[in-house]
Amino acid sequence: MTTLSTATDSRTVDALLSRYDEVRSYTEQLAAPLSPEDQTVQSMPDVSPTKWHRAHVTWFFETFVLAEQERNFAPYQDKYWFLFNSYYEAIGPRYARAERGHISRPGAHDVGTYRGNVDARMRDLLDTLDPGALEQLASTIELGFNHEQQHQELLLMDIKHVLSANPLQPTYAGTPAPTGEPDRLGWVDVEGGLVEVGHEGGGFCFDNELPPHRVYLEPYRLGDRLITNGEWLEFMADGGYERAGLWLSDGWGRVQREAWQAPFYWQQLDGVWFEHTLHGTFPVNPALPVTHLSHYEADAFASWAGKRLPTEQEWEHAARTLLGEPDDSANLADSQTFHARPAPPATGGLRQMYGDCWEWTSSAYLAYPGFHPAEGAIGEYNGKFMSGQMVLRGGCALTPPGHARASYRNFFPAGARWPMTGLRLAEGAAK
Amino acid sequence: MTTLSTATDSRTVDALLSRYDEVRSYTEQLAAPLSPEDQTVQSMPDVSPTKWHRAHVTWFFETFVLAEQERNFAPYQDKYWFLFNSYYEAIGPRYARAERGHISRPGAHDVGTYRGNVDARMRDLLDTLDPGALEQLASTIELGFNHEQQHQELLLMDIKHVLSANPLQPTYAGTPAPTGEPDRLGWVDVEGGLVEVGHEGGGFCFDNELPPHRVYLEPYRLGDRLITNGEWLEFMADGGYERAGLWLSDGWGRVQREAWQAPFYWQQLDGVWFEHTLHGTFPVNPALPVTHLSHYEADAFASWAGKRLPTEQEWEHAARTLLGEPDDSANLADSQTFHARPAPPATGGLRQMYGDCWEWTSSAYLAYPGFHPAEGAIGEYNGKFMSGQMVLRGGCALTPPGHARASYRNFFPAGARWPMTGLRLAEGAAK
Amino acid sequence: MTTLSTATDSRTVDALLSRYDEVRSYTEQLAAPLSPEDQTVQSMPDVSPTKWHRAHVTWFFETFVLAEQERNFAPYQDKYWFLFNSYYEAIGPRYARAERGHISRPGAHDVGTYRGNVDARMRDLLDTLDPGALEQLASTIELGFNHEQQHQELLLMDIKHVLSANPLQPTYAGTPAPTGEPDRLGWVDVEGGLVEVGHEGGGFCFDNELPPHRVYLEPYRLGDRLITNGEWLEFMADGGYERAGLWLSDGWGRVQREAWQAPFYWQQLDGVWFEHTLHGTFPVNPALPVTHLSHYEADAFASWAGKRLPTEQEWEHAARTLLGEPDDSANLADSQTFHARPAPPATGGLRQMYGDCWEWTSSAYLAYPGFHPAEGAIGEYNGKFMSGQMVLRGGCALTPPGHARASYRNFFPAGARWPMTGLRLAEGAAK
Amino acid sequence: MTTLSTATDSRTVDALLSRYDEVRSYTEQLAAPLSPEDQTVQSMPDVSPTKWHRAHVTWFFETFVLAEQERNFAPYQDKYWFLFNSYYEAIGPRYARAERGHISRPGAHDVGTYRGNVDARMRDLLDTLDPGALEQLASTIELGFNHEQQHQELLLMDIKHVLSANPLQPTYAGTPAPTGEPDRLGWVDVEGGLVEVGHEGGGFCFDNELPPHRVYLEPYRLGDRLITNGEWLEFMADGGYERAGLWLSDGWGRVQREAWQAPFYWQQLDGVWFEHTLHGTFPVNPALPVTHLSHYEADAFASWAGKRLPTEQEWEHAARTLLGEPDDSANLADSQTFHARPAPPATGGLRQMYGDCWEWTSSAYLAYPGFHPAEGAIGEYNGKFMSGQMVLRGGCALTPPGHARASYRNFFPAGARWPMTGLRLAEGAAK
Repeated sequence: MTTLSTATDSRTVDALLSRYDEVRSYTEQLAAPLSPEDQTVQSMPDVSPTKWHRAHVTWFFETFVLAEQERNFAPYQDKYWFLFNSYYEAIGPRYARAERGHISRPGAHDVGTYRGNVDARMRDLLDTLDPGALEQLASTIELGFNHEQQHQELLLMDIKHVLSANPLQPTYAGTPAPTGEPDRLGWVDVEGGLVEVGHEGGGFCFDNELPPHRVYLEPYRLGDRLITNGEWLEFMADGGYERAGLWLSDGWGRVQREAWQAPFYWQQLDGVWFEHTLHGTFPVNPALPVTHLSHYEADAFASWAGKRLPTEQEWEHAARTLLGEPDDSANLADSQTFHARPAPPATGGLRQMYGDCWEWTSSAYLAYPGFHPAEGAIGEYNGKFMSGQMVLRGGCALTPPGHARASYRNFFPAGARWPMTGLRLAEGAAK
Repeated sequence: MTTLSTATDSRTVDALLSRYDEVRSYTEQLAAPLSPEDQTVQSMPDVSPTKWHRAHVTWFFETFVLAEQERNFAPYQDKYWFLFNSYYEAIGPRYARAERGHISRPGAHDVGTYRGNVDARMRDLLDTLDPGALEQLASTIELGFNHEQQHQELLLMDIKHVLSANPLQPTYAGTPAPTGEPDRLGWVDVEGGLVEVGHEGGGFCFDNELPPHRVYLEPYRLGDRLITNGEWLEFMADGGYERAGLWLSDGWGRVQREAWQAPFYWQQLDGVWFEHTLHGTFPVNPALPVTHLSHYEADAFASWAGKRLPTEQEWEHAARTLLGEPDDSANLADSQTFHARPAPPATGGLRQMYGDCWEWTSSAYLAYPGFHPAEGAIGEYNGKFMSGQMVLRGGCALTPPGHARASYRNFFPAGARWPMTGLRLAEGAAK
Repeated sequence: MTTLSTATDSRTVDALLSRYDEVRSYTEQLAAPLSPEDQTVQSMPDVSPTKWHRAHVTWFFETFVLAEQERNFAPYQDKYWFLFNSYYEAIGPRYARAERGHISRPGAHDVGTYRGNVDARMRDLLDTLDPGALEQLASTIELGFNHEQQHQELLLMDIKHVLSANPLQPTYAGTPAPTGEPDRLGWVDVEGGLVEVGHEGGGFCFDNELPPHRVYLEPYRLGDRLITNGEWLEFMADGGYERAGLWLSDGWGRVQREAWQAPFYWQQLDGVWFEHTLHGTFPVNPALPVTHLSHYEADAFASWAGKRLPTEQEWEHAARTLLGEPDDSANLADSQTFHARPAPPATGGLRQMYGDCWEWTSSAYLAYPGFHPAEGAIGEYNGKFMSGQMVLRGGCALTPPGHARASYRNFFPAGARWPMTGLRLAEGAAK
Repeated sequence: MTTLSTATDSRTVDALLSRYDEVRSYTEQLAAPLSPEDQTVQSMPDVSPTKWHRAHVTWFFETFVLAEQERNFAPYQDKYWFLFNSYYEAIGPRYARAERGHISRPGAHDVGTYRGNVDARMRDLLDTLDPGALEQLASTIELGFNHEQQHQELLLMDIKHVLSANPLQPTYAGTPAPTGEPDRLGWVDVEGGLVEVGHEGGGFCFDNELPPHRVYLEPYRLGDRLITNGEWLEFMADGGYERAGLWLSDGWGRVQREAWQAPFYWQQLDGVWFEHTLHGTFPVNPALPVTHLSHYEADAFASWAGKRLPTEQEWEHAARTLLGEPDDSANLADSQTFHARPAPPATGGLRQMYGDCWEWTSSAYLAYPGFHPAEGAIGEYNGKFMSGQMVLRGGCALTPPGHARASYRNFFPAGARWPMTGLRLAEGAAK
């Protein structure tokens, strides 16, 4: 399923250990500003407590690496096997997902001890592997890195929700987003035709990005930047949340049942719209990309604008051919600001494709032609979720640098609003 | 959105009136075996009472034809406007769908009177139209025919559910399915490539079949017949409903929450599986196609068999190029037996593509490239449901003859089991 | 549990048969204005379809009389045993209560045939009983009469709800209530002390009215008539439904969750309050007793008025000592108007104690000291419901004449609004 | 509503301050063994987090004492007003009860700071009051003491539930209950007659214990001790949870829906029943009182035993006349073991009436004749909950010493199982 990320030198023990330390310590760095109480709360069933994320990614290495390779393996704690299994049926029963917030122990500090134990055992194991065994194990370990990075993002998006439930409006960290002047939305034409999508060549990818395959695309155009808060306010002012005709039927049902009137983290105080962020609660900034939308809202906006959302193939083909892979030279620890940025000045090309907001596409999350999940429990990683979800592309400001790529397929149910989502418009080419 | 079904002579008043009478009287023919009490019951929110179907299709003509064209139009009954609107937001508020079974009046007989009134007004209107107006109106009327045919099928599938809820095991009508010997499943190879799908040329189609467009298909193979009850019993005997690894995650959730153990209308009595049908309750017949499955069950079976479901494009391309359109020469009233048939003897080609069971595909129900819903309330017919559903192809034994075609796209949520669904396997071509 | 209602001559076969015919035919008389469709609908879980009531009371005689005494007894239809058992665990499993409206067959006419069959068998049985057997059976038969009368009332209150769900506002029968001038509410002083309550002496009663026993009552006063719609409008105008401080906590929860703003069958059209009745929908009549209230609403009104509800013992003691038993000389068929009447002119005594609206008391429905339910399935009649309900007294305009009495204990959950309920105020005597 | 507990010297500032320190510090002593994570979790809607309890009782003093009397009063934190109001509508809106576990901040330590602030202000206030003001305020302060004691008990019963949700089976504190030999259940005869119940004379009581009043009791007998685990195992072995005929209808519904098979905290491992306690999970001890039962279970047991539950008046009259008030000479900090004790040897009198398990009575929780809630927000303390609950008597092993008394009325819904409940049998006297 996975290929190693870089050249042969990364298959050395030193390279693996260095990467291991980097990924593992970044998780702890993200959790550091959070109190034991913060790390315990589950504010809705989709959210997991911080300390659960920290333990689960550790369980992943313990289960899929140590249990397979360690001599005289015994679990650190029998019941952790049960508590920190997320959804792997082949591994055994699991503690109910919606009740992760009912578990006070192990506490945040105990989870740190568990992490330390597994880290030491991982280092011991790697030190003693012969090259053949290492080569065999390297792809699972690299999957563990990418898995932990996914949970780094989830940890942030979940704690954002946890803190939002608190009337004291606590903040996580960092500084607010810079403001800016939104410029006019431009359009980038793409020729289409019989093109290739899916992951090719070197570097790691998830199984759902495979196999690379051909699709036929009619000529199309993509908006050159994300839709902004300012544009969303226009949609709202024009009755966007009150006009059934703009909405998919399921979406309109949600609008009415849940009384949606604005993006997820917006609230109106004395006539002014504010937005909850990880840095605090601020007046909505018109220059920033609008975020925390459901697919339904993104789709309704596109209808209102007389446009549509891009397919995932359109997005990927444009990203790959016009832009290439994301630039991840930035240092992990410094680079994340946890907020989307205003669009840079227009250049005639695509802007904000990577690392601001996950972009909803019009594509359902389904298997690529020829897709086969991996054998065993690891095969449950992606394939069994190919039902009832929509694809998002590009990564967001909570995604760890180096994690996303052009072929990366994220997915959420159409009604999900707590991920850091946004939208880019598309339309068919003029004929 | 719609083009007329046949040549210019069908645009004559006589042709339209004759077709009108044929479609409208067939609805009444289907309702005839049902008592006033039968016609009143709604056994679950997805089901509508028979008399509601009879009234709603009448309301459709009243709303989209008479209200637009009749001089001095006034509704037959003001409140019917509210009671019999299904989901057209642009027409106004509606009686709650889940409570259609709470409405005892108008009774079955009163609905007949309503139908008679609208029929008379429709005939009067058509008689007085000049050719230009007729041409303009004809496509809406033809949409009304196809709409009523869809409800003819729904009426049958809904009353099947209503009667199944009754411990007295009442029957609807007709005679049981003939039995037969299932033969070996064969495979038909299809070359694929850059092919055209979507409705083209003459005849009516729904807007969701448009526009015709190109897609690229890898070479593939289709099973030459539907999966049988006998094969389903093998799946069950092999733990099909107990092995999480075969199922999509959402599907496995349903299996557990709703304790699925067999297809929807099956029940086990003293160790023997019986099936509720419109003709009565009979031991499961191994030669007949398995039916009343969710998409999840169809997908799990395909996983168990080491195959997959076809995409809707694969299905359509094969049907169109290898088989052509369905043969609907049969007379309406006589031709429907309301049960799927055993597969005819193998011929090396595709069998049971039309008119036995709606075949689940692996395709989500989404807009074709370049799709635009019609203007106005009629635009709500299909487009707003393009979310959270899967495409089915081919028609079933409850579909009125002449209604389905190669490009026809039916759709249901992945968990729906009360439609008359089945499955055909597919796989990629050997390389 | 039961004693026979009148003198020894009622224990003759002739007297029993005459009473049997009277009670049984009255049920059919009440159902006569209802179409087969009307008789099929269940508009909420608490409601049962008319034809279910007609069949269930028949099942009661079949189960508790014929099955016990008939030679070569066989059920009329095996599955009816299952379909028409209401809640008798000792008899066996039952069709789910909330799904009674899913059953179209037996139809209304078939139920009539079932009734005729049981009637004939009951007559045959009674004709052949020797006096000893008759004496033994008479109390069960009389329970059957009273059971059927309870369902006569339920039939009416249920069909009232069914018709209220219909936007066509259909009516059941009869003529609207006469209007009148409400006069001032007066008070009747009652001395209290160590008094006797519960059923004593001759005539039928339910087991929950037994045994008679002593209770100590402080001196108290009762309002001399029911609270009127006019007084309720004052409560509403004074913010009755908006002031948490007037309400029990559970009641306030319901007010908010279900947005209560007025009694159950009231709706406001263009600023005027209308009330749905069995005779049609009319502007609220200020002189009539307010009806279709929950216990919570009755209690909140009493708080608003600075008073309280009476206990069931206070009500019974006053009724028995100041008024005696209800006068039921009226002929069944003619006497019921299905609406409460305006209070008659004040006389210094209690008015409207019987037959207008069931009066909520402040007493929970619990066993009397020394209560023992009957042996066997019949013991489930009342005792197992002594939990989570409140007692109501006096009967209502839907209660068949001759059915209620001073010691009669009706009961409903505090939130029930579809019964024909009302309220009378009480307070402690001035000291 | 409240009278002061002891003689005039308790109304001195010194006495009040000493009592204040005692009650307040005991809360902190109970919370001390719990980690910040433990104090944050809400394992079901009925449970509140430990730190919420600690903050809410503090808010009570701030709201009902400081806000009324402090010069230049300002809330410690505006939002605490909202977060820590439990159910006082008159005080204003509240954070949703079911979401108290979503609030990570203020953390456990911050709550300690809040407590310290209010304690200092309370001391300052009390030091400056003149005797008249003190006298006026003393009853509210004493209510605050009793309120905090109620939450001390809730804190323990809630954390018991929190820890029970954790597969790691963490313990709270203390040592397991001693075992013992259950002796035969004896009976104590009580004469009854016209007796007085309700709180009389000196000392504090809640408003729901007032006014004292007369009731008439038939002669009765009470079991001389609580029912034991051993007796409960007999009930289970005799099909207690499978025989509908033993149960109230609502109770039987719960047994089936929630698959009750044993008391709340029991679980069967390899054929042996274990019980979760605050001290750990142990095999069920037959000599200990059975605990954590719903009213439904207690009632079903009584039916099975051919007895009944006592009324609250029977319980109180027997306690008062045969036993007197509980002996609370024990020192708070040492006396609580957090588990019920085996019954002491039989003496011919009542045993285990106080301080082992709250005893379910057959009485609904309703107002005493002549009851009036206090004016203002404090009036919401008890009165508005007099609906849909049953009375329990006697206190339990989690109740702080000195808190309960003969007239004390506790109340819970009939289905509540997480309180520390038990049962004592009663029956009418032999005639």
